[in-house]
Amino acid sequence: MLFIQDIFQLIRQKNSCLCVGLDPDLQKIPKNLLSEKDPIFEFNKQIIDATYPFAVAYKPNVAFYEALGTKGWETLYKTAEYLPKDTFKIADAKRGDIGNTSEMYAKAFFEQMNFDAITVNPYMGEDCVKPFLEFAGKWVILLALTSNAGSQDFEQQTLQNGRKLYEEVLEKSKQWADHTQMMYVVGATQSQYLQHIRKIVPENFLLVPGVGTQGGNLQEVMQFGMNENVGLLINSSREVLYAGEGKDFALKAAQKAQEIQKQMANYLEKFF
Amino acid sequence: MLFIQDIFQLIRQKNSCLCVGLDPDLQKIPKNLLSEKDPIFEFNKQIIDATYPFAVAYKPNVAFYEALGTKGWETLYKTAEYLPKDTFKIADAKRGDIGNTSEMYAKAFFEQMNFDAITVNPYMGEDCVKPFLEFAGKWVILLALTSNAGSQDFEQQTLQNGRKLYEEVLEKSKQWADHTQMMYVVGATQSQYLQHIRKIVPENFLLVPGVGTQGGNLQEVMQFGMNENVGLLINSSREVLYAGEGKDFALKAAQKAQEIQKQMANYLEKFF
Repeated sequence: MLFIQDIFQLIRQKNSCLCVGLDPDLQKIPKNLLSEKDPIFEFNKQIIDATYPFAVAYKPNVAFYEALGTKGWETLYKTAEYLPKDTFKIADAKRGDIGNTSEMYAKAFFEQMNFDAITVNPYMGEDCVKPFLEFAGKWVILLALTSNAGSQDFEQQTLQNGRKLYEEVLEKSKQWADHTQMMYVVGATQSQYLQHIRKIVPENFLLVPGVGTQGGNLQEVMQFGMNENVGLLINSSREVLYAGEGKDFALKAAQKAQEIQKQMANYLEKFF
Repeated sequence: MLFIQDIFQLIRQKNSCLCVGLDPDLQKIPKNLLSEKDPIFEFNKQIIDATYPFAVAYKPNVAFYEALGTKGWETLYKTAEYLPKDTFKIADAKRGDIGNTSEMYAKAFFEQMNFDAITVNPYMGEDCVKPFLEFAGKWVILLALTSNAGSQDFEQQTLQNGRKLYEEVLEKSKQWADHTQMMYVVGATQSQYLQHIRKIVPENFLLVPGVGTQGGNLQEVMQFGMNENVGLLINSSREVLYAGEGKDFALKAAQKAQEIQKQMANYLEKFF
């Protein structure tokens, strides 16, 4: 179990708020791994070992494992088990369903795989989020304002009460759980909204994907998104995973992770 | 592949628009199955065989399989494979993520498991739904107005343009795909809105969960939800699965499915 002060400590120890997204794609991993019994697990292991000095969190994207069938699901289990205890382990699953179903998902990710957190979709409302909150010491990371263009379709629509839908998600869900159990997904491409979001949820950690390949700007995210507990976990997936294409892919991934960590350190030094 | 006219034919053949939700729970299935190598698969097989004369669709709820780990995932595969070809096979997964991730989910459910349809969450917008629509002959069933109390939190909030969020979901998504590829989830507990929903999406099939245990009224759903192609798949899960608790559970499930089918037939006869 990682409480909010533990996450802060991890960030302090590594001078980093980097989350490495484990979205392994058989088409993209180095060819020399394809002869391994479980190429994806071998890839993940090497990526985890190499980036561990620079990363405080790991976030397997569940879809990439599901796409590989039962074998992929086994790989996800093994990966979850392999993740170092002193890292924050996020299942990027974007689940959410009526109560008894959400409870099943919670069991899968929190109990079977021992993840610390799961990403949850708010569309269906409170009773779909609550079952996840009933697991002591576990975290819900609720989708708020995502990094994709489609965020304009609904998330950024204005309600009659003057709030945008993502603001309504923040406001309502604050009443379901506080910053010791709830985080929010805010895409790095939405950094212009970060100052505003900080006014609504000053204390919560934000999980920020979309830096790198998706075009988000790390500096802006750090500048506008931090709170007094840092309050940010910034995810990079493809940029780190596929920094190299050859046998030295893990070294290249470590170098990229370190490069990002160093950029983060500029903003983090004031805390430590 | 099942096209819209094929689904209509299935409904006509069986005089039924029943979808049986396969949400098997180890705590609830008959004790005598627990000694089987794969109790859930054995349960599903018997439920499918028994209800097949009365059901046109089956909808495994993916969470219930995920909660059982790798073994559960295997059971889902086997169940998907076992489902009769002349039934509409729905993966109730409520997925949705940025483009390359949704594509991975689509591969898992459409290609690996050969489902005809998947339920998708609209929160993140068009680019999260489109990857599913790129699979020819496959269906997206988009969450619109769900059966749970939490539907009031966001789905039923009114936007500045006067539409409720679920109406906006219907209106926008109509532009992404037509009724030959898109269906919508509308909870049976929301039957008072069905006439209104029919004005927005007159031609689309609706997948209607929430009859039975959740309190939805079958008669109202049939009365207000049908269109000229029937346009309804009405789901029952627990009411059918757990109609009996003993060794005769499959017989009891068949009887319950037949009872529902007969009620449906009253409304369907005008078509045939």
